[in-house]
Amino acid sequence: MVEPLRVGLAGLGTVGIAVLRLLERRRADLEARCGRPIVVSAVSARSRGKDRGVDLSDVTWYDDPADLAHDNSIDVFVEVIGGEDGPARRAVEAAIARGLPVVTANKALLARHGNALARAAEAHDTGIGIGFEAAVAGGIPIVRTLREALPGNAISRVYGILNGTCNYILTRMEREGLDFATCLAEAQRLGYAEADPTFDIEGYDTAHKLALLTGLAFGTEVDADAILIEGISAITPEDIAAADELGYRIKLLGVASRAGDGIEQRVHPTMVPKSSAIARIDGVLNAVAVDSDALGEIVLVGPGAGGEATASSVIADLMDVATGRHIPTFGRPASAMQPYSAARIARHAGGYYLRLLIEDRPGALATIARHMADHGISLESIVQRRRAPRADAPGAAVPSVVQPIVLITYETTEEAVRAAIGAIAAESVVAGPPKMIRIEKLA
Amino acid sequence: MVEPLRVGLAGLGTVGIAVLRLLERRRADLEARCGRPIVVSAVSARSRGKDRGVDLSDVTWYDDPADLAHDNSIDVFVEVIGGEDGPARRAVEAAIARGLPVVTANKALLARHGNALARAAEAHDTGIGIGFEAAVAGGIPIVRTLREALPGNAISRVYGILNGTCNYILTRMEREGLDFATCLAEAQRLGYAEADPTFDIEGYDTAHKLALLTGLAFGTEVDADAILIEGISAITPEDIAAADELGYRIKLLGVASRAGDGIEQRVHPTMVPKSSAIARIDGVLNAVAVDSDALGEIVLVGPGAGGEATASSVIADLMDVATGRHIPTFGRPASAMQPYSAARIARHAGGYYLRLLIEDRPGALATIARHMADHGISLESIVQRRRAPRADAPGAAVPSVVQPIVLITYETTEEAVRAAIGAIAAESVVAGPPKMIRIEKLA
Repeated sequence: MVEPLRVGLAGLGTVGIAVLRLLERRRADLEARCGRPIVVSAVSARSRGKDRGVDLSDVTWYDDPADLAHDNSIDVFVEVIGGEDGPARRAVEAAIARGLPVVTANKALLARHGNALARAAEAHDTGIGIGFEAAVAGGIPIVRTLREALPGNAISRVYGILNGTCNYILTRMEREGLDFATCLAEAQRLGYAEADPTFDIEGYDTAHKLALLTGLAFGTEVDADAILIEGISAITPEDIAAADELGYRIKLLGVASRAGDGIEQRVHPTMVPKSSAIARIDGVLNAVAVDSDALGEIVLVGPGAGGEATASSVIADLMDVATGRHIPTFGRPASAMQPYSAARIARHAGGYYLRLLIEDRPGALATIARHMADHGISLESIVQRRRAPRADAPGAAVPSVVQPIVLITYETTEEAVRAAIGAIAAESVVAGPPKMIRIEKLA
Repeated sequence: MVEPLRVGLAGLGTVGIAVLRLLERRRADLEARCGRPIVVSAVSARSRGKDRGVDLSDVTWYDDPADLAHDNSIDVFVEVIGGEDGPARRAVEAAIARGLPVVTANKALLARHGNALARAAEAHDTGIGIGFEAAVAGGIPIVRTLREALPGNAISRVYGILNGTCNYILTRMEREGLDFATCLAEAQRLGYAEADPTFDIEGYDTAHKLALLTGLAFGTEVDADAILIEGISAITPEDIAAADELGYRIKLLGVASRAGDGIEQRVHPTMVPKSSAIARIDGVLNAVAVDSDALGEIVLVGPGAGGEATASSVIADLMDVATGRHIPTFGRPASAMQPYSAARIARHAGGYYLRLLIEDRPGALATIARHMADHGISLESIVQRRRAPRADAPGAAVPSVVQPIVLITYETTEEAVRAAIGAIAAESVVAGPPKMIRIEKLA
């Protein structure tokens, strides 16, 4: 008689319930694959009485996930509660402390405490694993790909669309010419955005995921604090239209790349060429691309969220535990991870989109051009669509209206662009500081 | 002192040399990841004197790969010779017989003998693995993805562009309006096609890869003989232009899907909607898509061939061996693989493109339409571009020229289409049998 793998499942929200359902639905095949049953023998959740549509009568119940982590009958601890501190953290730490393998969907927890947790897991004689496929890009197997499929490659960049909420909003803004607030409201109505959407739209969720991808790709310790973060709330339909005209789309990307003096980590709205694979990822889909020396580029596309997609990744990690496949948390022993060394973002080299409002009078454009030249910035294109003078002023002298102008720079540095923007903003011909969006060079 | 993993490398062609180079280039990181050095201690190849640009002075040389497989100093046998029988097969069988793990890039060998080899590998007490990431889609980690990332999913279809030679030819035909022969010659000149291109262009290479994907996706024994195979040599610029006009591109796809009574395996030129992810894969790139219940669709894109891309996958499999991660060859114990049961291709349901030449006289189109209706086939579109009467016959009666006509059917069965084609071909108004291309329904 083969012993089953006994799972302690902490969290019975959308993902937790989906884990229970998939384990049931796929029971025969999972058992055939690993040679033993996988059973959830204990769970924890806050509200015991709630009807979740699943039969929990044979399962031990805990109110506190830390108590579940101390249940001596379980072989693996699954954490799908969420939150970087609080009950999830205490429970995961307790599970690791007693030598239980952990499977988690909690990107915030790992982005903050992943280094310490990985070290604690590996301090055990047997070495235990922390599976977190579900924490990055939902059902896309990017964690396994970086952890196990690419050791023969020196990775130069990993980037992707890691937040479906933002991509849904940007896609609708582009397709329908709507503004950000309208699309956010739509996303909320459809359940793609939270009531408080800050975490998604301001880029923090993407940053947590990026921090984990960086650790996997470059073998450096996770450092979510070192990420430049800009969200999408300032993107306007005018930016999207201008990008379109110039051959680009705007996506919220997380990008980690090796630069001369370290690793650059950035989350920001990014102009990507329409011809690139990443430009064509629409709606709530996620995509992750990996650039490396041996492979060039590989791209993985799929659902980045949703109960069953996330549960699919949890179950892949459970199979690793069930079959005794041990893989260090970030693909290398924690002791072999290098300290994270941030590349200076000021040195980031790339093209930039600048959109500004200037007074429509002689010399205004020359002023802008002079500041760009003073900072050594060459311009690839300038687009100025003159607004027609108002119809109620026929025959009037050319009115002094404010006109939008869009500049695309050739490759330059962040430092130079910021300095030029500062100088331009101080000019009286300019109404307000220029809007800047970075352009990502893609094949 | 940690023991290194000693590799016996059979085959020093493009892939074998790339394996040596990557192991050298990535030595420090590989050792950090698995805790011990990976060294090639013995090799086999036919021509010992040839200068391959790598230092083999410390390496034991064998002329026969089977002798290498018997070298007692090696821990793993890597086969990058190729060929479904002959030296590669003998050597792999010898390695497995003595309990050595095997890593191979040999799709033909596994498509023919994979079931027996997997059983032999698992007959050992310890169970040894056969890693074959490199055998399907080069550097794309689709083998690991199907084997390890998706156990929580019931897969309904796996399909992809699995042959870069064909995709290169079709891409050039489409972009430049050139015919097949011209693009094949170009592919040969650039080294993307062999001197004898039959194996690639007639779909056999795709079929071998598909057979392996089928086994991984559905847990059924590999059966390459059960695949419907059509190559791309009959595709004309007219087909590509007609597809374009109707919103499709033509790709050589391998498709395995679950049908009512079994698994359907097909390799053929396929019309795919321009909006689909797979339609946008150009040139020598490969792409594989997996449709399943929990995930919907995931798509992996990357380089499907080339020495370093293939070597990257070999090294990923070597790392599994070096770290003692054992995974059954097809993701399940060989004893748990189900017999392959072919779905009847006659029952394949889908849309079809038909292109035929009919005499331009009254009643011709009615004849075609009647045969379609007689077989229960509804038409989604009919495109007839009348060729202008010849300019040197002004004022002549409408000449009896042959006109091309393109029909797109709604979903019907292969059986009905074939019967309709047979009936139409027998009509005197038709010049030659209709050209038929299957349409794949994609999201």
